[in-house]
Amino acid sequence: MTGAGADGGPASTGAGRPLAVLVAPDSFKGSLTSVDVARALAAGWARARPADDLRLAPLADGGEGTLVAIEAAGGWGWRTAPAHDPLGRPIEARWLASADGRHAVVELAAASGLSRLAAGERDPLNASTFGTGEVLRAVLDAGIRRIDLGVGGSATTDGGLGVLAALGLAMTVEPGLEVYLDDLDPRLPEVDLRVASDVANPLLGRTGAAAVYGPQKGATAVDVRSLDGALGRWADALEAATGRRERETPGAGAAGGTVFGLACLRDRFRSFAVVPGVELVMDAAGFGAKLAGADLVLTGEGRIDAQTAFGKTALGVARRAAAAGVRCVAVGGGVEPDGAAALAALGALAVPVAEGPQSVEEAMAAGTAPLERCGERLARLVSLGMGFPG
Amino acid sequence: MTGAGADGGPASTGAGRPLAVLVAPDSFKGSLTSVDVARALAAGWARARPADDLRLAPLADGGEGTLVAIEAAGGWGWRTAPAHDPLGRPIEARWLASADGRHAVVELAAASGLSRLAAGERDPLNASTFGTGEVLRAVLDAGIRRIDLGVGGSATTDGGLGVLAALGLAMTVEPGLEVYLDDLDPRLPEVDLRVASDVANPLLGRTGAAAVYGPQKGATAVDVRSLDGALGRWADALEAATGRRERETPGAGAAGGTVFGLACLRDRFRSFAVVPGVELVMDAAGFGAKLAGADLVLTGEGRIDAQTAFGKTALGVARRAAAAGVRCVAVGGGVEPDGAAALAALGALAVPVAEGPQSVEEAMAAGTAPLERCGERLARLVSLGMGFPG
Repeated sequence: MTGAGADGGPASTGAGRPLAVLVAPDSFKGSLTSVDVARALAAGWARARPADDLRLAPLADGGEGTLVAIEAAGGWGWRTAPAHDPLGRPIEARWLASADGRHAVVELAAASGLSRLAAGERDPLNASTFGTGEVLRAVLDAGIRRIDLGVGGSATTDGGLGVLAALGLAMTVEPGLEVYLDDLDPRLPEVDLRVASDVANPLLGRTGAAAVYGPQKGATAVDVRSLDGALGRWADALEAATGRRERETPGAGAAGGTVFGLACLRDRFRSFAVVPGVELVMDAAGFGAKLAGADLVLTGEGRIDAQTAFGKTALGVARRAAAAGVRCVAVGGGVEPDGAAALAALGALAVPVAEGPQSVEEAMAAGTAPLERCGERLARLVSLGMGFPG
Repeated sequence: MTGAGADGGPASTGAGRPLAVLVAPDSFKGSLTSVDVARALAAGWARARPADDLRLAPLADGGEGTLVAIEAAGGWGWRTAPAHDPLGRPIEARWLASADGRHAVVELAAASGLSRLAAGERDPLNASTFGTGEVLRAVLDAGIRRIDLGVGGSATTDGGLGVLAALGLAMTVEPGLEVYLDDLDPRLPEVDLRVASDVANPLLGRTGAAAVYGPQKGATAVDVRSLDGALGRWADALEAATGRRERETPGAGAAGGTVFGLACLRDRFRSFAVVPGVELVMDAAGFGAKLAGADLVLTGEGRIDAQTAFGKTALGVARRAAAAGVRCVAVGGGVEPDGAAALAALGALAVPVAEGPQSVEEAMAAGTAPLERCGERLARLVSLGMGFPG
């Protein structure tokens, strides 16, 4: 028997050798950013095991919060670009450059997001992605050719027309819409572009950009029909000019069709790919390298439930951890048996943050303190196990 | 780095050497008995670590449930004694005899408890502890002289008059109450009696048996005054006959003054002691010996909160575990920081059973499944720690 009394018992700090712990949660939607969650779990863990090597790699899905999460992982610096918001007002938009100045991450929402507009300003018929194109141009001006673009949170349904216009695409509108590619930015053939998107919608029709995402950007039923028609005319012109057919490509409807517009130019880039948001974030955060050196990865999301089995962040982390032979614990504000089982099938353990009966509203208003305590408990339980000689 | 993938990861079973785990929770008041809680935690733990040596020592506070908890710990057999309930109706009352036939545990509530009465039958002026005296006599008839008596849950406020009458005390009531001890059971001087009680109330007055506990036994304000007067006359007579002064003794008011009555006879027993309920239960359950051989003790109670610091079961277990150098984890349906801190000061770790936002009613109606999952999670986290080489 191990004498817990001799070393102060399971509440003692720093049991066993120092562990390398990678803290890679998603946000707790509606209450805490992934950066908040990661910092809280790490702070609690460090209270119990201050000698451990804690590395943060907060995750995101490519939507708003993506840049903040990547920056928190380290190795990135903030840059700003003069640009225009969805309504054409001048702004400064933030983007990230890697420390070696060779890789950029751009968030469409930084210039073209709904968060740029007050509630009464939503204007789905006119909102433009031009500003995002300006940011991309600034990235090129900085000499960077490897660009990751997260497209969540857009205020726009312009099919990417604004982005492409900022990159040099020209148009005539009479007698019909025609598109000219001769003046496209000459640096595009040097660019490796990855777009993060988790939606599978095509550009047009009942499951298209206007019908599915228009209403949350302020579109009425009449607006949706008008937008869908305009996107169709834009698709006719752009596909004719590029010789590509991308309107039915799964995900073409993402970000109001921005992915359609970029996909039509796929042959003009050095490389072009659409990847799941969390994969892009993991790569930008150096997740793979950090995971390879870790003893344990802590992930988590607001709810670990039946949806977890269908690819939410925790499952993606658990899958990578299993492939790398690294143990994985996933914390959830709430944990349901279905979600825990999906993780257990990958060898990962789901642990609830909840500390007792309370309402959803109370749980969401509780801030980071329960997460800190959860991180501390986990560290103490791991220490407890490490204290038993094999 | 340990290759979790190689052995199936943290979800694999039986990591490390087998552990000896003592499972010693209190009841979750209002929802689960301590036996339910212990079995559920052990069942969940065994799912994750089937090779471990799990021993149950469910706890209780000396009140109702005490016998069931002790029996579940093993080494005891049920006996029954013909007796009378608080209203004088014939019943069979259960008690426990140790396997060696030398030690008995009696629960006052078995014959004289409120649980013997329907709601409309409560009769505080007449309810008698006579039946408990009959059970004690049956224990003596069985040749047993070491007796532990739990006194919680009584329906009575008779100052122990019934118990003592069953044991041979005689009275005259005219012209005044007088008590005669000549015919007391001649075997009492061979008896080692321990009474389990957690209350500090004296027999009489504003903090006495009638005033504090009478109302929950059905006493009106008028009844309380009447009962307090009757207890005073009884105390005058019994103290005069025994030459003792016990009315102010802390705890004399327990079980409607039964502890007062027995305490007045303290010189007539071979030994007499009043001990905290959980201490008596721990002893009867062989807690000390089981703890000495354990790697880890799991305890718990319905809520781990500020009250935990004032001697609820989990703290008692944590204290004994610390003294024995055994690691301790306490689970609680709800865990509040104050309670967790009180346990942490003893080196014990508080872990919530809660799995997400829910109401107190939902939590209490959830049955044993969440406890099983909690036990399994704890075992997996300990296994995870054991998987890290020192």
